[in-house]
Amino acid sequence: MNIYAFLQAVHEKRPLVHHITNWVTIFDCAQIVKSFRASPVMAHAPEEVEAMSSIASALVLNIGTLTTEVVESMKLSAAAANRKGIPIVLDVCGAGATAFRDRKCAELLDGAKIAVIKGNSSEIARIAGLAVDTKGVDAGHVSADLREVAKSLSKRRACTVVITGAEDIVAGDGKLFSVRNGHPIMTTLVGTGCMATSVIGTFAGAIPENIPEAAAAGLCCYEIAAEQAAKDCAGPGSFKQRLFDCVANLEEKQIRALQQVATEP
Amino acid sequence: MNIYAFLQAVHEKRPLVHHITNWVTIFDCAQIVKSFRASPVMAHAPEEVEAMSSIASALVLNIGTLTTEVVESMKLSAAAANRKGIPIVLDVCGAGATAFRDRKCAELLDGAKIAVIKGNSSEIARIAGLAVDTKGVDAGHVSADLREVAKSLSKRRACTVVITGAEDIVAGDGKLFSVRNGHPIMTTLVGTGCMATSVIGTFAGAIPENIPEAAAAGLCCYEIAAEQAAKDCAGPGSFKQRLFDCVANLEEKQIRALQQVATEP
Amino acid sequence: MNIYAFLQAVHEKRPLVHHITNWVTIFDCAQIVKSFRASPVMAHAPEEVEAMSSIASALVLNIGTLTTEVVESMKLSAAAANRKGIPIVLDVCGAGATAFRDRKCAELLDGAKIAVIKGNSSEIARIAGLAVDTKGVDAGHVSADLREVAKSLSKRRACTVVITGAEDIVAGDGKLFSVRNGHPIMTTLVGTGCMATSVIGTFAGAIPENIPEAAAAGLCCYEIAAEQAAKDCAGPGSFKQRLFDCVANLEEKQIRALQQVATEP
Repeated sequence: MNIYAFLQAVHEKRPLVHHITNWVTIFDCAQIVKSFRASPVMAHAPEEVEAMSSIASALVLNIGTLTTEVVESMKLSAAAANRKGIPIVLDVCGAGATAFRDRKCAELLDGAKIAVIKGNSSEIARIAGLAVDTKGVDAGHVSADLREVAKSLSKRRACTVVITGAEDIVAGDGKLFSVRNGHPIMTTLVGTGCMATSVIGTFAGAIPENIPEAAAAGLCCYEIAAEQAAKDCAGPGSFKQRLFDCVANLEEKQIRALQQVATEP
Repeated sequence: MNIYAFLQAVHEKRPLVHHITNWVTIFDCAQIVKSFRASPVMAHAPEEVEAMSSIASALVLNIGTLTTEVVESMKLSAAAANRKGIPIVLDVCGAGATAFRDRKCAELLDGAKIAVIKGNSSEIARIAGLAVDTKGVDAGHVSADLREVAKSLSKRRACTVVITGAEDIVAGDGKLFSVRNGHPIMTTLVGTGCMATSVIGTFAGAIPENIPEAAAAGLCCYEIAAEQAAKDCAGPGSFKQRLFDCVANLEEKQIRALQQVATEP
Repeated sequence: MNIYAFLQAVHEKRPLVHHITNWVTIFDCAQIVKSFRASPVMAHAPEEVEAMSSIASALVLNIGTLTTEVVESMKLSAAAANRKGIPIVLDVCGAGATAFRDRKCAELLDGAKIAVIKGNSSEIARIAGLAVDTKGVDAGHVSADLREVAKSLSKRRACTVVITGAEDIVAGDGKLFSVRNGHPIMTTLVGTGCMATSVIGTFAGAIPENIPEAAAAGLCCYEIAAEQAAKDCAGPGSFKQRLFDCVANLEEKQIRALQQVATEP
């Protein structure tokens, strides 16, 4: 896979990515998109979300700090995104932690055509209907084969499914990719998962004709930047700052040398 | 213009600046005010915004992630600010992106005496009634002469108008200032525009008798700090951290050597 | 006091700390908890706060940007926390600034068993019923003896009271501790008080059988990290990043050499 070509497309098209996201990492979601030279816009008022999605190239929904009102805005914007034909990426953040989250995820998934469902292993397992052991928004233990979970959910929901972790799994259009870039320090920083979702939205907005590859390429670029940022890094505070710097400075040479994306049968 | 005298006034008076702002850059708005040794306070509940504005020296309104409810709180606090006679600074963030934003801007401008309207070129052009091409919250192309737009809107609304960009334009009280400090890296960081608004609120709160000069001086100080922060800077993450440091460490010598504020006829 | 043993307990138990906090420092609250290797979760929808508190080890409530709706969610989660028997830490941020804040603090304190009330000197004085001079969310002047204020409020409310400042005072279970760690640069960073509250929640969640000691130990560890972060520090931006790094890297040797916690009669 020519990962760099996907990054180039993002840099050239600079997609406008409409977010309805959580209040914890909203700045980070915006900044990671901007660091990829694209345009983030955050807007959640029911009176304007349809208009905002209508001028965007992708819609990112993240239920991290969901309320009934914000989910209603998500539904309105998702309908507008579907009418325009732009991809919707849904981060099922905290799925399984409360019945309310599970119910709202189901409403969002049943009510619109979602292009990418993204979560950690226990969140996606929950969305796939498996019993899971969650702990708030951190991944719990999942005994099932994650590749099978992703493939089967992808088929059932007719969408791309992304499971993030030390190894990311991307299943969509009958294809399966694994991404092995990244660094353990990512688990010490709040928001690395949310930012991954915004990156997927950015790449899907730039390359909507090829969502599974775009998602894998976006994760790969983001995680190569994380590898650079982790070098000689003192902790999560330094890492965060350097992550934005390294995304902004991603180079072709770096990506070609470091990309660890595998296509699986 | 003795820019440093304005900074000294801020450092001595340490104004309390009440904000009703967006959820993306709310920390950054507070931190930039505090870095100037003033006191930020963020409060948006309708039950308390009047009381909070009544103990403040300035009110900053930013519609970045507006909702109908939050705009109602803005109206209440604006009325209280007007009763007390403290300046109100309005950031028309995203004006032109949706009809909802345009309508809410009009309601805020028509319902209270706003001291400073601040936006990028396309936002201010929109507020001035021109047709513009926006892209979310980033500046679109504007063909009109920005000085004329600012002067004419300033006269019509009887307020100070600030258009930020590579060159900032400040029009008010029949005067026109341009500020040429700053650095291109500012466009790669989310929130530099929001922080500029909070800086203007801080300076207007400390020097309310001279709003256009206070706005120009505040922008100049903030942007000189940005120039310092940009030196040997690896990207937007490092830049953000250093920006707060450099604002906290602004020195008279620096300001006198670097200030690029012109008074125009 | 063996402060390090408390840090070890946090590192081993990694408590899940449910927050309903303000929108300004919500990321920082989450990140400081994660930097102590515990699990933050932020959730405020009335439909799920009881479920979230029921899987948590501590509940942190911070009224920094309170609304009536969010306080209603705080009440629901507080009731669930009481039913489960996990400690609730309440940051009375901005108490005294508006009548609305005072009223909502009273409702929260009267409606549930709060384990720790935390604030700066003027906030706690206000909660204790004294007349105070506040300035937004920054501490105003208090003439009363803070030790007596803390002890008396602790007795009256049957809880632990924490007053933060250059010297922190912790009163609870008939005991009094003072913590003299920390650094003046903390006052230049927005959110150091909010993070202190989240740290207290984290330690109380890990050592619920000994809340006053846990609060003092948590403050001591956090402030030793702040002392490390302040070394050769250029300003509030650098300090913030380094604070997260230094919390993540706290060492036994450091704590034993630097801890300044006194038990008072």
